[in-house]
Amino acid sequence: MVEIYVLRLGHRPGRDKRVTTHVGLVARSFGANGIVIGDVVDESVARSLRKVVDLWGGPFEVIMGVNSVEYVKKWKSRGIVVHLTMYGLHVDNVIDEIRGSGKDLLVVVGAEKVPRIFYELADYNVAIGHQPHSEVAALAVFLDRYYKGEELHRKFSGAKLTVVPTPRGKKVLRI
Amino acid sequence: MVEIYVLRLGHRPGRDKRVTTHVGLVARSFGANGIVIGDVVDESVARSLRKVVDLWGGPFEVIMGVNSVEYVKKWKSRGIVVHLTMYGLHVDNVIDEIRGSGKDLLVVVGAEKVPRIFYELADYNVAIGHQPHSEVAALAVFLDRYYKGEELHRKFSGAKLTVVPTPRGKKVLRI
Repeated sequence: MVEIYVLRLGHRPGRDKRVTTHVGLVARSFGANGIVIGDVVDESVARSLRKVVDLWGGPFEVIMGVNSVEYVKKWKSRGIVVHLTMYGLHVDNVIDEIRGSGKDLLVVVGAEKVPRIFYELADYNVAIGHQPHSEVAALAVFLDRYYKGEELHRKFSGAKLTVVPTPRGKKVLRI
Repeated sequence: MVEIYVLRLGHRPGRDKRVTTHVGLVARSFGANGIVIGDVVDESVARSLRKVVDLWGGPFEVIMGVNSVEYVKKWKSRGIVVHLTMYGLHVDNVIDEIRGSGKDLLVVVGAEKVPRIFYELADYNVAIGHQPHSEVAALAVFLDRYYKGEELHRKFSGAKLTVVPTPRGKKVLRI
């Protein structure tokens, strides 16, 4: 089974807390095995993510404070590195090749400015369209295309809560 | 041609500035005609969005400070109201019906807690999976499914900048 990790670059504690938390929640709910927050430690983000894993299930790993450049370099001996950027090749032109490789994937998403080295180290620079939008959206759509939508039907193990879909209102089961 | 607007509920200036900006950028780049920020005015968000429209093209409207409940009620005489929530019906079970209606769409996305009235006023409460994640991701995947991926190939009018896709690096044309 292919493993996918998401590397979040350029996280600035405080300022990026909410967006990085969204990146982490999307990583988990769209089928990635974990998030790696590069170069810094931010306990408040880790706490929010681990609380969700505790309530809604996993497995999902939260790793922090690794050196991003070294981490990417090491990953290249294990699998493929995909960097999401509006300047890259259109997802529609490369997703089949990436999926078809059958290799583990590191998906790199930046905050504001991503240093040039990551464009160079990446096996694929992939654009979820060529318009400016959001690393949260880019990650979600990339994983959705990778898994062909199946990720949105996945069950999580060890969940304490589960949603019962309803046309109106909120129905949650404790399990 | 169907028109789609996105209504952002519960925006708290300051705290939600970045996430609401992401919601607006996703709305634009995934094919919506505009964003409506309900109940408050936040010039810093509007400025960021209008700057992107100026550089990368439109059309894309930014509306602020309307009464959200009244806006939703009025919209129901024009088209369909879709509220994105993890508690709703799975997108895979309703997207064809929503698209098939051929009606204008108001897509409602909340911040933290969405008041009950919006669940009741919505024609569809739609879940992009039943896991907690992000309104930015939910909006992107909803629009991607609605437009069947065609939105990521759309041209914007009046753009001053356009990306030339490259495997490595950044190439932008001034037009």
